[in-house]
Amino acid sequence: MIYKPENFILDVDGVLTDGTFYYSKDGKILKRFGPEDSDALRRLRDLTSMTIEFVTADYRGYEISNSRCSHMGFKCTLVRNSFSRLEWLEKNFDLSKTIYMGDGLSDILSLSKAYYSISPNNAFDYVKKVSDYSTKTYGGRGAIAESCIKIYELFFKEGDEDVISMFTKKFDG
Amino acid sequence: MIYKPENFILDVDGVLTDGTFYYSKDGKILKRFGPEDSDALRRLRDLTSMTIEFVTADYRGYEISNSRCSHMGFKCTLVRNSFSRLEWLEKNFDLSKTIYMGDGLSDILSLSKAYYSISPNNAFDYVKKVSDYSTKTYGGRGAIAESCIKIYELFFKEGDEDVISMFTKKFDG
Amino acid sequence: MIYKPENFILDVDGVLTDGTFYYSKDGKILKRFGPEDSDALRRLRDLTSMTIEFVTADYRGYEISNSRCSHMGFKCTLVRNSFSRLEWLEKNFDLSKTIYMGDGLSDILSLSKAYYSISPNNAFDYVKKVSDYSTKTYGGRGAIAESCIKIYELFFKEGDEDVISMFTKKFDG
Amino acid sequence: MIYKPENFILDVDGVLTDGTFYYSKDGKILKRFGPEDSDALRRLRDLTSMTIEFVTADYRGYEISNSRCSHMGFKCTLVRNSFSRLEWLEKNFDLSKTIYMGDGLSDILSLSKAYYSISPNNAFDYVKKVSDYSTKTYGGRGAIAESCIKIYELFFKEGDEDVISMFTKKFDG
Repeated sequence: MIYKPENFILDVDGVLTDGTFYYSKDGKILKRFGPEDSDALRRLRDLTSMTIEFVTADYRGYEISNSRCSHMGFKCTLVRNSFSRLEWLEKNFDLSKTIYMGDGLSDILSLSKAYYSISPNNAFDYVKKVSDYSTKTYGGRGAIAESCIKIYELFFKEGDEDVISMFTKKFDG
Repeated sequence: MIYKPENFILDVDGVLTDGTFYYSKDGKILKRFGPEDSDALRRLRDLTSMTIEFVTADYRGYEISNSRCSHMGFKCTLVRNSFSRLEWLEKNFDLSKTIYMGDGLSDILSLSKAYYSISPNNAFDYVKKVSDYSTKTYGGRGAIAESCIKIYELFFKEGDEDVISMFTKKFDG
Repeated sequence: MIYKPENFILDVDGVLTDGTFYYSKDGKILKRFGPEDSDALRRLRDLTSMTIEFVTADYRGYEISNSRCSHMGFKCTLVRNSFSRLEWLEKNFDLSKTIYMGDGLSDILSLSKAYYSISPNNAFDYVKKVSDYSTKTYGGRGAIAESCIKIYELFFKEGDEDVISMFTKKFDG
Repeated sequence: MIYKPENFILDVDGVLTDGTFYYSKDGKILKRFGPEDSDALRRLRDLTSMTIEFVTADYRGYEISNSRCSHMGFKCTLVRNSFSRLEWLEKNFDLSKTIYMGDGLSDILSLSKAYYSISPNNAFDYVKKVSDYSTKTYGGRGAIAESCIKIYELFFKEGDEDVISMFTKKFDG
C-alpha cells in the first residue's frame, strides 16, 4: 500500500545548489542557488504538512547554506561526518516515512534506506541507480521544485486535480 | 487583426538573469546578467515607443536587480506577493495591449492573460506551454534580445525591412 | 593572394568572457575569464609580431576588463559608442590587414569590413553568418586560444610544422 | 606488467576547477570548485597510500588555490614557468611511477611522459589525444572523483571488490 510520507529531508550541496562553491583567498565565500525551489517547497509544506528540513556536512559553508535555508523558512542541520548521515536520519526520523534527496556518493546509503529517494540530474550514475527517482532538472536549477511536484503527484494528489495549478503560488523572499 | 502592443513588461529573475543568485553568509549578494539584452531593449524602445518595464517579487535581491535595470535605463518595480503579479499588471497596464515575459510557475496566470506572452528557454515546460513564444536562447544569455527582435518582426516590421540591421546599434553601459 | 595580417583586434565581453557579468547592489563588480587564452595570445604575438589589442564599449566594467588585459600584457581601449567601433578600427588600423574578433550584433559591421573575422560559438547566428570563422569553443572557454591556433595555421604556418607544439608554452600570470 | 603507481600529481585550474576565474577591478579574486573531488582524493590516499599533490603556475590565483587545497588536506606547489612543469615533475617524482592529470596545452609534455595520464572532459582535443584516459565529467564537476575511482579500479582493485562502495565515505570540510 502506498502511504503518505511524513518527512522530506534534503541535502544542500548539489541539490539546492549545483554542488559548486566559490573560494577567495579567505576560503569558501559563495554558493549559487536557483529559482522555483523555495516557492515549491513552501507550497508542498502548506499542502501536505510534511516536515521539510535540510541537512549538510559542509561546515566551512554552513553559514552560507543556513542563510539561504532560513530565508526560505527551513531548518538546516550541520551533521559532521564523525556521525554519519544515515545514523542522523535514523535517529531523528522514521525512515519508513521519509523521502530523502541527495546527490553524492556519500548519500548512497541514505538513499537506499529511505522510503522514497530522489537524486538530481547532476548526480553520478552510481547515485542515480540507487534512487527511486532522478529529476530531469539539475540541482540549483529546479531539481527540488520538480521533486515537490513529483512528490505531490505520487503521494498526495486527489482525483483529477491539476497538480501544476497547486504550485503556481509565489511567496516572498 | 494584429495591432501594435503598447507595453512590454518583463520579469527579472530567469529572464534578465538565468534565475540563479549567489549567497555569502550575509545573504543574497550577487546576480549574473548577460549580453545583448540592454542594447536590444533600448533599441526596441527607440524604434517603437513602447513602454518597457521590469517587475520583480524578489525583495532580498531588489537592490541588485534595480541597480542593473537603472543602468540599462528601465524602471523596475518590486511587487510583493501579498498583491499578485497579475493584479499589478491589470491595475497598471491594459493587458490587451501588453506583452509579458516571464519564466516561473508563478508567471503562468500573467502569461495566459497577456496579449502576447514569451518565456525563455530555461522555463519549465509547464510555463512554455502557456506562452505564445519560447525563445531559443536562455535567460541572461540573450533571451530578451531575441524577444525584442521577435516583437519587432511580428508587430512593427514594415515591408522587406532588414530587422537585424535595426538592432546593431550599440549603447553605452 | 593570402598575405599575413598585421593586427588582431578583439572585443572583450563575449570573447574573452562568456558575455555575462555579475552585479551586487553596488553595480557591476565581477567578470569571469577562462583558460588558455592568455598563453595562446602571448605565444601568437611572440611568433608573429602581430599587434594584438582589445577594445570594449563597457565603461562600467572597464576597470575589470582592463585589469585582466593588463595582467595578460595587452592594451585594452574603451571606445564609447558616441564614436563607433568601426570608425575607431578604421582610424587606428589598416582594416585590410586586420583580423577582428567579436560576438555581438553591434560587431556585425566591423566583422564584415575586416580582412578576416572570427566570432565565438556563443554569438548569435546573425553574427556568425558574417564571420569568416566561428570557433567551436565559447568565449571565456578557449575561443581566443582556438582562434590563435587557427590564425597561425592559416596565415603563418610554414611547411609541415606542427602547429600545436608551437602553442604548448606556458607563461606566468 | 601493471604495477601500482606511487604518486598522483594534479594541475589545479581546469582540473579542480572548470578553468575559469573571476576578476573584480582589483584582479583575480574568485575561483569555483566542485563536489566529490575532496572526498574521493582523501579516500584514495587512505586506501592506497599514494602521494597526492597539486601543482599550479597561476601565481595571481595561488592564494585561492592553496586555500582550497589546504582545506582538502593536500599540498599545492607554485611552479613558475621559468622552470617548466615537466622539469619540476622529473626533479621531484619518479615519472615512471606517477599519474599526472592536467587539462592545458602546456600539460601535453607532462601528460606524454607520465606513467599514466588523465585529462578532464573540458580539455582541448589536442590534450585528450595524448592522455591515457579522459574523464566523462568536467573539471570542477567531478573529474577528479571519477579519476580516483578509475585509478583505484585500474591499479589497486582486488578481486571482485565493489569499487564504488570504497568511495562512499564522507569527510568533513
